[in-house]
Amino acid sequence: MQLQKPTLVPPSRGFSHNEFSTRLERIQSAMHKRKLGALWLTTEADIQYCTGFLTQFWQSPTRPWYVVVPLVGKPIAVIPEIGVSCMRGEWISDIRSWSSPHAHDDGVSLITETLREVRVDAIAQCGNEFGAIGINKGRETHMRLPLNDFDQISEGLFGPSHTSNFPHASNFVDATAVMRDVRLVKSEAEIDKIRFVATCVSNVFARLLDFVHVGMRDDEIFRAFKVECLNAGVDDVAYLVGAAAADGYDDIISPPSGRVLAPGDVLILDTGAKYDGYFCDFDRNFGFGAVHESVHAAYRAVWRATEAGLDAARPGNTCADIFRAMDTVLQAAGALGDSVGRYGHGLGIQLTEPPSHTDWDTTVLVPGMVITLEPGMVFAPGRMMVHEENLVIRENGPELLSIRAAPQLPVA
Amino acid sequence: MQLQKPTLVPPSRGFSHNEFSTRLERIQSAMHKRKLGALWLTTEADIQYCTGFLTQFWQSPTRPWYVVVPLVGKPIAVIPEIGVSCMRGEWISDIRSWSSPHAHDDGVSLITETLREVRVDAIAQCGNEFGAIGINKGRETHMRLPLNDFDQISEGLFGPSHTSNFPHASNFVDATAVMRDVRLVKSEAEIDKIRFVATCVSNVFARLLDFVHVGMRDDEIFRAFKVECLNAGVDDVAYLVGAAAADGYDDIISPPSGRVLAPGDVLILDTGAKYDGYFCDFDRNFGFGAVHESVHAAYRAVWRATEAGLDAARPGNTCADIFRAMDTVLQAAGALGDSVGRYGHGLGIQLTEPPSHTDWDTTVLVPGMVITLEPGMVFAPGRMMVHEENLVIRENGPELLSIRAAPQLPVA
Repeated sequence: MQLQKPTLVPPSRGFSHNEFSTRLERIQSAMHKRKLGALWLTTEADIQYCTGFLTQFWQSPTRPWYVVVPLVGKPIAVIPEIGVSCMRGEWISDIRSWSSPHAHDDGVSLITETLREVRVDAIAQCGNEFGAIGINKGRETHMRLPLNDFDQISEGLFGPSHTSNFPHASNFVDATAVMRDVRLVKSEAEIDKIRFVATCVSNVFARLLDFVHVGMRDDEIFRAFKVECLNAGVDDVAYLVGAAAADGYDDIISPPSGRVLAPGDVLILDTGAKYDGYFCDFDRNFGFGAVHESVHAAYRAVWRATEAGLDAARPGNTCADIFRAMDTVLQAAGALGDSVGRYGHGLGIQLTEPPSHTDWDTTVLVPGMVITLEPGMVFAPGRMMVHEENLVIRENGPELLSIRAAPQLPVA
Repeated sequence: MQLQKPTLVPPSRGFSHNEFSTRLERIQSAMHKRKLGALWLTTEADIQYCTGFLTQFWQSPTRPWYVVVPLVGKPIAVIPEIGVSCMRGEWISDIRSWSSPHAHDDGVSLITETLREVRVDAIAQCGNEFGAIGINKGRETHMRLPLNDFDQISEGLFGPSHTSNFPHASNFVDATAVMRDVRLVKSEAEIDKIRFVATCVSNVFARLLDFVHVGMRDDEIFRAFKVECLNAGVDDVAYLVGAAAADGYDDIISPPSGRVLAPGDVLILDTGAKYDGYFCDFDRNFGFGAVHESVHAAYRAVWRATEAGLDAARPGNTCADIFRAMDTVLQAAGALGDSVGRYGHGLGIQLTEPPSHTDWDTTVLVPGMVITLEPGMVFAPGRMMVHEENLVIRENGPELLSIRAAPQLPVA
């Protein structure tokens, strides 16, 4: 295991042409293998990955946004006019736009026409067997457009149905594996962004007991933590959940409630801060005053489980191997279960990405994968302990991107 | 027009039982009218609205989350185990959960069974004509689950198809109008949250020239603004976009680029900050040094357009009336166009909600609707000016929720 290298100079924003063309080559190679003439993308993460289009405007659900990856040539953006200036960079040149929101055709005819054109080109260039259009239908995906529009686009491409209003999706091929497998392995430029944001947050966690104390309301703690992270250089604290409770929490996804931090509490903060479109995702636990010995023991157990996960996090092993290495430690420590459903996951443009450290995920680890290790256990009824670290798989083992948590529960 | 009432004491978090039961009554009344036996919800905003389930965990795309609203009785949550504790409040009691992520059945059988049961109950209680299950298919919606799961759920409910792998969506009824129309009109408790966050942000904008100055990089400006908003009491600055450019910007949805603020620049910041799950959404413009007279003129034009919009923002008028009132002012001022596609929108749990101020949106304004007025114009090629205010429709006209922008461009 290599220790985390602090890099407090922020990496430059954006990516080189070369980065985008390498991504495109990998996507198109996977499309060739699956005989896809076109890949139709509709979600923030996939579109950001292919084009560099980075904006918080995705929070508005009003307008659909599309990118079509052809079998040959650059991605084509089919987007509302409001995004043209932001999309127009040095990488994407074919941008087709419409005035949105629109009374009756919010990009439907434009995306239909574009998909048809790209498909015809693929057939002309590569043969009749390349007529399929790929979309995401699988695990952890959704199509970000109204179903009524999806139906119209399907009908426009594949003709009207004789039996139902909505029989067209079978004409789209499930291409979930294409983007998933390409995005799974990060470039050094992507890893630099994740390491930077994880380092900023690690440093804030390291001094947390300087600015969090008994008597603060949890919403004050959340706000103070966000301010510290922003001052440390992150762009956003897009995700912050946590809990504080006497002798152990039972919920790790809730927002603050106004509860006041009290002696005997264990506090967990789990944060996904961002830099230039990339997330870190890890948590830290803190004790205040006299914390029950079972909490200390649970903390040591999840810390040791993380060590076992780090040992297993090397090329050739699978996510299931990581799961089993961690699970063995947690079971031996008397774990009563874990509602999280896995012991960590992929990380990058999204707070959580495939794969999952479960007993059924046999994804093979390869260098460049960025993952979290997140062992969790219920150590007594209604009382949980969860740890998390971020790392990248290297040829000879993991490189930590977060600064490793202390082996004993930090107590104020 | 009533001036904004500053309320810097944060409203209490959450909502009363009464609030949730009123929402439910309105939803079920709309379901009755449309003869829907069940309403199946899959997205953050709809689920938060019906249940009070508030968490940033939605940023993880790994797990689907479902709520089923029956024709009679309380909503049923069908969710991953990790969310049970957060969902279990005083309002929602029927929570059905599974261990997620799951190897081969990520809630598919559980939601299928629940929808079937709720539909059977509706038919038993209200008659055979209440067998339809409503989902969102319309404008500004999407279904947040994998298409493969959607197909399986459809097949489980409506039987296998003989002609295609995916012919089932026609068996779901488009119920977009149900949630849209109910969510359109806010309660006083909802309005209080939006007013609070809009006031916090208004106060930060009022002192922006104290902490933003020529020579700062735009990412520093963004970070400083977020810190000020957090210190003012908002939970999150979930949305912040903006631009600065000599004599006018041409893009209002981009993140910071590292550009240094220079004399002659116009800076726009457009922000959606949140308090207890509710957004404000408005912008402000600032000039630095000697700004071109055309910028001042454009600022005055959009300010006057907002005045015209405020005059039109009264019960009985439509969004199209608001649009026309504002558009008349902007056209007279020489507007060359507007890539935003509308002059404002609804606001609440989402940064943007229906309706839209366009010439084709004939939604009739009623008291309790919270909307933005967002006149924008291209005043010279590649140079835009956009204003925005937040307000609630009252019996006798609008009540501003943001503190009204100055009639002249503030210049440092």
